[in-house]
Amino acid sequence: MGSDSDLPVMAGAAQALETLGIGFEIRIVSAHRTPEAAADLARNAADRGFGVIIAGAGGAAHLAGVLASHTVLPVIGVPVTSRLSGLDSLLSTVQMPQGIPVACVAVDGAFNAGLLAAQILAVGDENLTRSIVLYKEKLFSSVVAKDEEIQKIGYSLYLDKKKQQ
Amino acid sequence: MGSDSDLPVMAGAAQALETLGIGFEIRIVSAHRTPEAAADLARNAADRGFGVIIAGAGGAAHLAGVLASHTVLPVIGVPVTSRLSGLDSLLSTVQMPQGIPVACVAVDGAFNAGLLAAQILAVGDENLTRSIVLYKEKLFSSVVAKDEEIQKIGYSLYLDKKKQQ
Amino acid sequence: MGSDSDLPVMAGAAQALETLGIGFEIRIVSAHRTPEAAADLARNAADRGFGVIIAGAGGAAHLAGVLASHTVLPVIGVPVTSRLSGLDSLLSTVQMPQGIPVACVAVDGAFNAGLLAAQILAVGDENLTRSIVLYKEKLFSSVVAKDEEIQKIGYSLYLDKKKQQ
Amino acid sequence: MGSDSDLPVMAGAAQALETLGIGFEIRIVSAHRTPEAAADLARNAADRGFGVIIAGAGGAAHLAGVLASHTVLPVIGVPVTSRLSGLDSLLSTVQMPQGIPVACVAVDGAFNAGLLAAQILAVGDENLTRSIVLYKEKLFSSVVAKDEEIQKIGYSLYLDKKKQQ
Amino acid sequence: MGSDSDLPVMAGAAQALETLGIGFEIRIVSAHRTPEAAADLARNAADRGFGVIIAGAGGAAHLAGVLASHTVLPVIGVPVTSRLSGLDSLLSTVQMPQGIPVACVAVDGAFNAGLLAAQILAVGDENLTRSIVLYKEKLFSSVVAKDEEIQKIGYSLYLDKKKQQ
Amino acid sequence: MGSDSDLPVMAGAAQALETLGIGFEIRIVSAHRTPEAAADLARNAADRGFGVIIAGAGGAAHLAGVLASHTVLPVIGVPVTSRLSGLDSLLSTVQMPQGIPVACVAVDGAFNAGLLAAQILAVGDENLTRSIVLYKEKLFSSVVAKDEEIQKIGYSLYLDKKKQQ
Amino acid sequence: MGSDSDLPVMAGAAQALETLGIGFEIRIVSAHRTPEAAADLARNAADRGFGVIIAGAGGAAHLAGVLASHTVLPVIGVPVTSRLSGLDSLLSTVQMPQGIPVACVAVDGAFNAGLLAAQILAVGDENLTRSIVLYKEKLFSSVVAKDEEIQKIGYSLYLDKKKQQ
Amino acid sequence: MGSDSDLPVMAGAAQALETLGIGFEIRIVSAHRTPEAAADLARNAADRGFGVIIAGAGGAAHLAGVLASHTVLPVIGVPVTSRLSGLDSLLSTVQMPQGIPVACVAVDGAFNAGLLAAQILAVGDENLTRSIVLYKEKLFSSVVAKDEEIQKIGYSLYLDKKKQQ
Repeated sequence: MGSDSDLPVMAGAAQALETLGIGFEIRIVSAHRTPEAAADLARNAADRGFGVIIAGAGGAAHLAGVLASHTVLPVIGVPVTSRLSGLDSLLSTVQMPQGIPVACVAVDGAFNAGLLAAQILAVGDENLTRSIVLYKEKLFSSVVAKDEEIQKIGYSLYLDKKKQQ
Repeated sequence: MGSDSDLPVMAGAAQALETLGIGFEIRIVSAHRTPEAAADLARNAADRGFGVIIAGAGGAAHLAGVLASHTVLPVIGVPVTSRLSGLDSLLSTVQMPQGIPVACVAVDGAFNAGLLAAQILAVGDENLTRSIVLYKEKLFSSVVAKDEEIQKIGYSLYLDKKKQQ
Repeated sequence: MGSDSDLPVMAGAAQALETLGIGFEIRIVSAHRTPEAAADLARNAADRGFGVIIAGAGGAAHLAGVLASHTVLPVIGVPVTSRLSGLDSLLSTVQMPQGIPVACVAVDGAFNAGLLAAQILAVGDENLTRSIVLYKEKLFSSVVAKDEEIQKIGYSLYLDKKKQQ
Repeated sequence: MGSDSDLPVMAGAAQALETLGIGFEIRIVSAHRTPEAAADLARNAADRGFGVIIAGAGGAAHLAGVLASHTVLPVIGVPVTSRLSGLDSLLSTVQMPQGIPVACVAVDGAFNAGLLAAQILAVGDENLTRSIVLYKEKLFSSVVAKDEEIQKIGYSLYLDKKKQQ
Repeated sequence: MGSDSDLPVMAGAAQALETLGIGFEIRIVSAHRTPEAAADLARNAADRGFGVIIAGAGGAAHLAGVLASHTVLPVIGVPVTSRLSGLDSLLSTVQMPQGIPVACVAVDGAFNAGLLAAQILAVGDENLTRSIVLYKEKLFSSVVAKDEEIQKIGYSLYLDKKKQQ
Repeated sequence: MGSDSDLPVMAGAAQALETLGIGFEIRIVSAHRTPEAAADLARNAADRGFGVIIAGAGGAAHLAGVLASHTVLPVIGVPVTSRLSGLDSLLSTVQMPQGIPVACVAVDGAFNAGLLAAQILAVGDENLTRSIVLYKEKLFSSVVAKDEEIQKIGYSLYLDKKKQQ
Repeated sequence: MGSDSDLPVMAGAAQALETLGIGFEIRIVSAHRTPEAAADLARNAADRGFGVIIAGAGGAAHLAGVLASHTVLPVIGVPVTSRLSGLDSLLSTVQMPQGIPVACVAVDGAFNAGLLAAQILAVGDENLTRSIVLYKEKLFSSVVAKDEEIQKIGYSLYLDKKKQQ
Repeated sequence: MGSDSDLPVMAGAAQALETLGIGFEIRIVSAHRTPEAAADLARNAADRGFGVIIAGAGGAAHLAGVLASHTVLPVIGVPVTSRLSGLDSLLSTVQMPQGIPVACVAVDGAFNAGLLAAQILAVGDENLTRSIVLYKEKLFSSVVAKDEEIQKIGYSLYLDKKKQQ
């Protein structure tokens, strides 16, 4: 991530990866403040055994693009909310020129960035694929459980319970 | 892609994949008009040997999200320009809820979608990695060539030559 | 609705329907997390006697569109406020492609979605039409009452009273 | 519609209704230039046997809202493209206050407005429901046909054929 | 104004008019909920001796436009902040079609609406012109006083004093 | 206007004023390129007998605001279309700070600016009021005529005739 | 700055300049409320020995542009957050017409405006250049320190420590 | 500039510098495609005697920011129009994080970037200052000439002459 102020958002990526048992390294490097560190990180990532890079930044969010310019590993970009509701972060991350794609997820979508990284690493890896399938099923069965509860107790009771949490 | 009106844009993805020697299948399925076909396509893609899905659509562009809800393969979304300059396509593609990531590229960025797919497939595949590196070097050395030419002939001659093309 | 986090907003639809004495079922199904449940819900709605479907979702809000692709019942979409002020939810809900209309109401306009559903069901039903007319008259006479009060007591006293509520 | 400059767009609604054999009346009344005519139109529509009103307008598009304030028939709003890409038309049409819903479709989505009107009229009308189902199937099988063709002849031939049309 | 929820903003217009000694009537009428009352208000305003109408509303803010369609008095529109930061209110108020101008001020700019009304009434009225000039001078000399203070005490002391207010 | 490139748009204001028989002076002064000329123009306008100032500019459109800072005459601002669809021109014109209102009309709404100026000058002037009423009636009866024609000849014939113009 | 309400933001510019030992004068002048004072300030700035002007304002933020029209010193504009998230301030500051550039920084980017002013003054001044280089190195080494800490203690401990600050 | 497709816009900067007799070098380097060349260019610019860097790029326009991260020379950013009307280019260029300012000019404002560079170089250089003043006077006297002509020949004749050019 580009600054430790992005950590509350970017921690979501770490949590997704931990849940799926995927190792990771978490770094603070800035496209603008420590550009050489960012370049080195990207250039060496494949050799150091990493398969995917996740980059989170806000405002004129260049980090994902800068990392992508120094590696052919897939780079996932997380636009972090800024003063302009994250629209600047989103456009700076996603509108990459031909030749340097960034895989952009939703504004503040760090958890999904972790999941997407897992899905990428799982291409051709049956064990990891199964873990993701299991995880998604658990995640989704909670939707079913909520659907059943709201039908059993009605929406206003459900709303009251939600407010008490 | 969701409609054959997206083909002029989406052909870029096919060209990127052809350049890198990666096989692909090109389909017209719609999240809204042929939802079962879309669901089947996504559900069977892994078993049929595909590693990545690229989805291009415009307006309320649900195709990438709908495919992503039926597979754990990575899904790359291409927002195709629409009446609102592609802002609707972009937001509909990228702002996915937790649990269902889509790897969004730039508006009309189909060529980059193809490249990103290749980069994903190249994780752990040295041959494909080398092909992408070579391809990017060729692509990038054209920037260097242009830089050298503009310094040799000057910007106004360069501009004249560009206009004549 | 796509998630129980949409319930505080979507409860407004239930309240509108209750006020007008119209039966309804409230469900949590997700276009992305439980797509089959969503498809089944839409496919069976007409046979189970429903006349209208109301769908509320935020972000890349595909729920209304996904339901509309599985039924010819009118589907009303409620864009729920998200990180980008609801602009993403609005565009994802309203910008549907030709062949699959969604009847979109205002951002967080769930109460109006309930009213619109009632207006749709009231086409050719004199009793329900009368109920809606009566209800709207009551709603609107409160505007007249406020207009009369502000003219009687003046705007600054009125403002004070409002603040004390 | 609010002006005859909206006709090239709004003709789409007429075509959808004609295709489904639904009678309609097409009027030019303006929320701002002929407000009494607009109010009368809306007030008398139910008595004259209409079941739905479709309103198309651009810019500060008040027509749908003004009509909705004079009737309890469902009013469908079509935001027509304007100088600001239709964003002003869209927001002016969809962001209605509590008590006066408008069923908004996509920018320039007049064809869908006609379809939606048909879907509303078809609630509880088996014949019309069947017509819509048939029509949609025909519409959708054209997607399937295109999908088959592109797989048979390949994308670049398909693209060439498309350009020649 | 269209609703008493607009009063905290719209009170600014009343305060501007009171300051300048200009009489006014403050009304709650809604373009959508009480359209006849709105139309009557506008139609009779000139005969009842009013020279300007100020209309404040949020969301799909049609009030100013609807009033303007029933009078040739100048109508000043105040877009009131809404869910979409007031962008919808602004566009709905300002983007009027040819033939029906609305004089739009800033989002929540009710005080300026009062001032603008005074400036309109002051055309050809030397006394009122003088009052406005005096008022503006007083308003503006407060800027000069602040400029002098910040230069005397320095910016950090000034900031401290401001925070204590 | 700020530049003669604004003339094709701003000519609309002149046409509205000519139609209503109101004298005017048309000037090219720039808030940024000839600021003193702009200030002088505004400062002397009242003494030279003008009652209203209309200012049209694009981009960071400061002209209306700059003129308004040098006069208490009402200043009408016309945001002229620019590279960003006129959104920059609109916001720069309308979002004025407290104390300096600008009466903003629609993007490229110069004709309406002329009409609004006339409506302002007509406050308390029965003759001019009557001229505006007559003019608006003529303008509006053309809507009625179009409504009658489309009902007589049908929408597709009407559309054909329109295309031939 | 245009108003003392901008001071909490604009103090950042003063802090940057103080840190680098560059003298400055802080003034409250308004493009609209005290236009002559603003013009004088800009016209005399070079003669009084200033090398750069920094202007901060919100809404229809004309201050930077107005100052730039009265001097050939570089003028740096700081768009200050307003009701519309600062988009209006940004566009009003940056979209200047040909002939009158403003050097615009980020929304609320006053600290960077101070740094940029220093960088401009440092062109050809080795001492000041060295001070800026030293300052930036200090600023940037804090990124490195944070990167090292997060790797040592892990992200969740780091997050806890951050929350306690 | 980041690509030779930016040349038609960026030539404006060269023309401004040529007009003022300021030497320059024009380069094509890409933040993403040739990042090392970009970094080298910025790192060596001061030693090679340059005083200012102008960077033009579109989309996720990282070039200005990337150059600014490798130098303390002032960097001027020109957002070049892209698919999203240049909004993405603008936000990617201007919304820089604390510590790395970019001096952003208008979308496609390359001529102004050249002028701003000249104004920066002219700080403390009386000859260059005089050249800029003379140049601006010439530029501005053309506004006066146009103002005089439109008053002499009237707006419609002026418009006719403009159309014939």
